[in-house]
Amino acid sequence: MKQENKRTSHQATPEVSPAVIKRLPRYFRYLRELIRNGKLRISSGELSKMMHVTASQIRQDLNCFGGFGQQGYGYNVNYLYAKICEILGVGEGYTAVVIGAGNLGRALVRSPMFEKRGVDILAMFDVDPLIIGQTVGDVKVHDMAELEKFCEHHRVDIAVLTLPKNRLHEVAERVNALGIPGIWNFTGGEPDIADSDIVIENVHIGDSLMTLCYELRSREYAAEEN
Amino acid sequence: MKQENKRTSHQATPEVSPAVIKRLPRYFRYLRELIRNGKLRISSGELSKMMHVTASQIRQDLNCFGGFGQQGYGYNVNYLYAKICEILGVGEGYTAVVIGAGNLGRALVRSPMFEKRGVDILAMFDVDPLIIGQTVGDVKVHDMAELEKFCEHHRVDIAVLTLPKNRLHEVAERVNALGIPGIWNFTGGEPDIADSDIVIENVHIGDSLMTLCYELRSREYAAEEN
Repeated sequence: MKQENKRTSHQATPEVSPAVIKRLPRYFRYLRELIRNGKLRISSGELSKMMHVTASQIRQDLNCFGGFGQQGYGYNVNYLYAKICEILGVGEGYTAVVIGAGNLGRALVRSPMFEKRGVDILAMFDVDPLIIGQTVGDVKVHDMAELEKFCEHHRVDIAVLTLPKNRLHEVAERVNALGIPGIWNFTGGEPDIADSDIVIENVHIGDSLMTLCYELRSREYAAEEN
Repeated sequence: MKQENKRTSHQATPEVSPAVIKRLPRYFRYLRELIRNGKLRISSGELSKMMHVTASQIRQDLNCFGGFGQQGYGYNVNYLYAKICEILGVGEGYTAVVIGAGNLGRALVRSPMFEKRGVDILAMFDVDPLIIGQTVGDVKVHDMAELEKFCEHHRVDIAVLTLPKNRLHEVAERVNALGIPGIWNFTGGEPDIADSDIVIENVHIGDSLMTLCYELRSREYAAEEN
């Protein structure tokens, strides 16, 4: 039964494969920049040059959800942006709380990232009495003990976890018990919540550092062989 | 000629495809955890269960660089970890400076991420007189004006850019002019350095937020159809 529902939901955006979905945030960023610069139309060739992706890849990706590029005329930037926002759920009015008001939590709250993606940060939570009561940007830091009470009065869609890894399990359980449907997890651990269909997105920044080190090493080898 | 060199360097790890390389940091993390827990051997089945990847995918990935799993006996965790470290360049003794000592820069410097991956943070740099001279963990914040002087006396492999996007271009040019071979870029912009073979790894944390929103929206659709 659940399976069937999932299939139905998939029909809302029938042609968009997970691989394309993964690439859409990057299109979102570039299109946003184009809009800011007052660009109304763009060809797959121009987009290709900007994004360092082949024009054929771009045409393939964007045709997935409508094929609204016109031969020799290019794509309507605003329409494309709106469509991508719709597919990705930007502007759905999602709300978030940030649990952990250390440097990373503060950096995230102060960045324009949430606003750009239409996610509203309602509050931060921490256990440190010295931090509780402070504001970061215009977001107040609440006592972690008040999370449950806060959620009685506010609909929270996303819990952003920027707390130490050793507290991940406990907090993830609380978030799950509160019925918050999404976790954006920066702790480095991976929450293992049994019997839950909570959506978890784990961020492992260090993976990207390793990719960089790998590229540096490959380059050194190339130079040595020179 | 350059092409040829690149091909030669590739022969150092001939069977490892870019797709596998991209997955290796995740193996690195899990193997690290296993070592910490004193686990010496692991089967592809156990690893599969931990990592939520099929056992056949794991066998395929790990066979790429040596095939040192033994039927019915499993993989030697230490050997696998060492091999992955070698491929990814962990323990090459890379050094980094962090440019931008705001919340994100501080969060990165205080995290165990660099140490775990064998990257040594030598210094932070900032333009704010109130921040210059401070220490974050045991890393000193220097005046950005002293970057060139610092690099005369220290070999720097990676510049971690956690500064505002509007200063990205200028700083990336300076980093490139100094011959620093790698940029780990958190600014949200993408540096466009002409005539350079500098390695750039861009981190767009917001992309991951969009993936989460997409998943939340898909789930809502599924529930509505219920």
